[in-house]
Amino acid sequence: MSYFDAASSAPLHPVARQALHASLDEGWADPARLYREGRRARLLLDAAREAAAEAIGCRPDELVFTTSGTRAVHTGIAGALAGRHRVGSHLIVSAVEHSSVLHSAEAHRHTGGTVSEVPVLRTGAVSPAAYTDALRPDTALACLQSANHEVGTRQPVAAVAEACRGAGVPLLVDAAQSLAWGPVEGGWSLLTGSAHKWGGPAGVGVLAVRKGVRYAPQGPADERESGRSPGFENIPAVVAAAASLRAVRAEAAAESVRLRELTDRIRARVPELVPDVEVVGDPVDRLPHLLTFSCLYVDGETLLHELDREGFSVSSGSSCTSSTLTPSHVLKAMGVLSEGNVRVSLPLGTPAEEVERFLAVLPRTVAAVREKLGAPAAAVAPAPAASPTSPASDELVVDALGRRCPIPVIELAKVITDVPIGGTVRVLSDDEAARLDIPAWCEMRNQEYVGEEPAPRGTAYVIRRTTP
Amino acid sequence: MSYFDAASSAPLHPVARQALHASLDEGWADPARLYREGRRARLLLDAAREAAAEAIGCRPDELVFTTSGTRAVHTGIAGALAGRHRVGSHLIVSAVEHSSVLHSAEAHRHTGGTVSEVPVLRTGAVSPAAYTDALRPDTALACLQSANHEVGTRQPVAAVAEACRGAGVPLLVDAAQSLAWGPVEGGWSLLTGSAHKWGGPAGVGVLAVRKGVRYAPQGPADERESGRSPGFENIPAVVAAAASLRAVRAEAAAESVRLRELTDRIRARVPELVPDVEVVGDPVDRLPHLLTFSCLYVDGETLLHELDREGFSVSSGSSCTSSTLTPSHVLKAMGVLSEGNVRVSLPLGTPAEEVERFLAVLPRTVAAVREKLGAPAAAVAPAPAASPTSPASDELVVDALGRRCPIPVIELAKVITDVPIGGTVRVLSDDEAARLDIPAWCEMRNQEYVGEEPAPRGTAYVIRRTTP
Repeated sequence: MSYFDAASSAPLHPVARQALHASLDEGWADPARLYREGRRARLLLDAAREAAAEAIGCRPDELVFTTSGTRAVHTGIAGALAGRHRVGSHLIVSAVEHSSVLHSAEAHRHTGGTVSEVPVLRTGAVSPAAYTDALRPDTALACLQSANHEVGTRQPVAAVAEACRGAGVPLLVDAAQSLAWGPVEGGWSLLTGSAHKWGGPAGVGVLAVRKGVRYAPQGPADERESGRSPGFENIPAVVAAAASLRAVRAEAAAESVRLRELTDRIRARVPELVPDVEVVGDPVDRLPHLLTFSCLYVDGETLLHELDREGFSVSSGSSCTSSTLTPSHVLKAMGVLSEGNVRVSLPLGTPAEEVERFLAVLPRTVAAVREKLGAPAAAVAPAPAASPTSPASDELVVDALGRRCPIPVIELAKVITDVPIGGTVRVLSDDEAARLDIPAWCEMRNQEYVGEEPAPRGTAYVIRRTTP
Repeated sequence: MSYFDAASSAPLHPVARQALHASLDEGWADPARLYREGRRARLLLDAAREAAAEAIGCRPDELVFTTSGTRAVHTGIAGALAGRHRVGSHLIVSAVEHSSVLHSAEAHRHTGGTVSEVPVLRTGAVSPAAYTDALRPDTALACLQSANHEVGTRQPVAAVAEACRGAGVPLLVDAAQSLAWGPVEGGWSLLTGSAHKWGGPAGVGVLAVRKGVRYAPQGPADERESGRSPGFENIPAVVAAAASLRAVRAEAAAESVRLRELTDRIRARVPELVPDVEVVGDPVDRLPHLLTFSCLYVDGETLLHELDREGFSVSSGSSCTSSTLTPSHVLKAMGVLSEGNVRVSLPLGTPAEEVERFLAVLPRTVAAVREKLGAPAAAVAPAPAASPTSPASDELVVDALGRRCPIPVIELAKVITDVPIGGTVRVLSDDEAARLDIPAWCEMRNQEYVGEEPAPRGTAYVIRRTTP
């Protein structure tokens, strides 16, 4: 079994397990009590806070433990916005933030706030200039992840922090994906993280708020964690979280080199081994353990299922795997192919052999899924048209209404050579992924994407054949 | 060492420890993922939900896991109020609810809602009639604990639920203190609980919302736990929580009889062994493991410290032990003595010998604290006046300004016999506890409490001597 989805949740680090076991006996009492069980619990909590603060790069009294990374984000954004409500109610986020940030932004919008979403480049990174342009006199808070959770691209946090500082706007950095690898550089104001992403237990997030940052806790009062995180402290888990953060940091230098070699190898080999693949995300400025690619003519859910049968646990930003039937907002913002999307994120210690076995298994797995779906057999060779609704001519219409990704793209690929060069294909589709994947297919295939038009049902996507 | 503070946090039950260890290997992955680690995690989560729902007395799809009892209360109250905002914004709570409920009520008031606090009898219980009187056409939600956390008194939940049902108002029951002993009877609409109170791990609360109850989750959206509890699920802890709830329920019938005998013994013996003690809370309709008493002329913090030195961990609702310097809102609402307050809550399995040792140690500990504070030596015998600011006469003034509890009451006791029967003593005090403790002393001593008057500094409490 190869678990390649560390970005969702890392397996518990052995140090976390030891620390958890050890502190179950010492850390169950109320740290606010003055008797010895309470004092022991308080000592453990204080020591964990110091260790975590040192690893994060803040003062212990700037750090509180929350119950998850999501809670840290929700709490931190709400508190920072409320702390600066006199300045204004404008919030800036990047278009590729984690859903916890985007959901906070949505909630802010609901209560009358305004939100700017900074677009990203095709690599997934924001441009510092674009981010700076979004800053306004009424900006209460800016948010930027340290690195993207779906494609691994690192964000220019230091440059954006500099711009925010110049504008007097606090910057909240969601560092959930990068804290295992090191502290976040640059002058951030607030920072959030999630222990189960670095091999700690579930149930622990971190929220750091620099001294001097205006902050007003929201919701019902509670005296725990400086009034910033209500509820009885989960001390054994907090101790395990802090211990494992130190432990993974001790391995980070060596493991980041080794895992980067492995992910570089996957990035290089996949397009050689599998036709019609787009590797996405910044090739260099990225997390060492994570890479993402998308496969044309593949149903992501079926691919994940087949890879699971072969012993590989990976995840996907394809709409085909989500219940909402919309493709990942990250891939959408990047403007890259979403169909057959696979994210590989290697846990610490992943053996090179597992990666080799993945590279051995992947090509035949993708081929099998494509065959099942009736995808064009070869990468470039034209395939016989299956169900065009009008005879071959300069203009051809493909009715893919009611068909889910990747069928609309497969149908398009089947018929593109049925029109002469200069001729057009109109694909009728009501699948949201087509909006992203048809233009991406055109770019990969060097065909011209003309645009979309409203249709009686769904949308008509118009493609002009420009390449033999 | 005798840990007698189970009501704050119970030691981890052995079954919880086993379940936690076992599920650390199986429950760390994301239960929303379709690969095998995710499916395993999902199975564990589903099984834990079924087990917990059965013990609580609801359907599995009515139950979500939160990150603490406090979170369950905050979340449940906010969601229920929002779900019924069209009906009105009136919230009812009892005066002796847990701070998480009262803080939610305060937050509700802050955003324009109205709150009624139902008073309690001297036992700590609400009267169903008084609760019913508080119901209004615009009442959105009513809250009542199953049993009080400080004095153990059970609340008439079934009768209040009946009244609420008649008025079409949902009732939220905070069952944190009673879930170990059995499900909550009666037609509640929402229910909350906290795993570390029943021997489960920290980091797990429960929130049940009956089908048909209007409920609108507040705050940023999140798909976890039916959208009612954001953040990555803490499955090992949830599994341990459910397993330990079943385990303590299996012991509940026998342990409730045994512990009730022990607490009955403490309730009976303490007033015999220690002079000037008031045992508070309902003597019969109460939790089996919990009792509370207050000792005249004693500083609660010093008493707890001395008991800790003797090996007993207990807690207190005295203002003397809290940083806010206001006495427990529970004792205040009951109108009972708060000084020298001690809460004893026995964990499952507490040996009878530990209770006997407590009864052996308590009298000399209380006596030592009283001696150190210069309290009247005997219970009834008059003591020489220490510092009356006017000579003995029909009216005597004691200046206790700047002195904390229990000093104002000690000074009063010292001089009461310096005035003739029918004469008065005026105690000047700026300690908030005096407002509660001077009338309570009068009741215990059969003296007449005339009332309070504003004074140039603090308050003048007027006492008439009626008893030799």
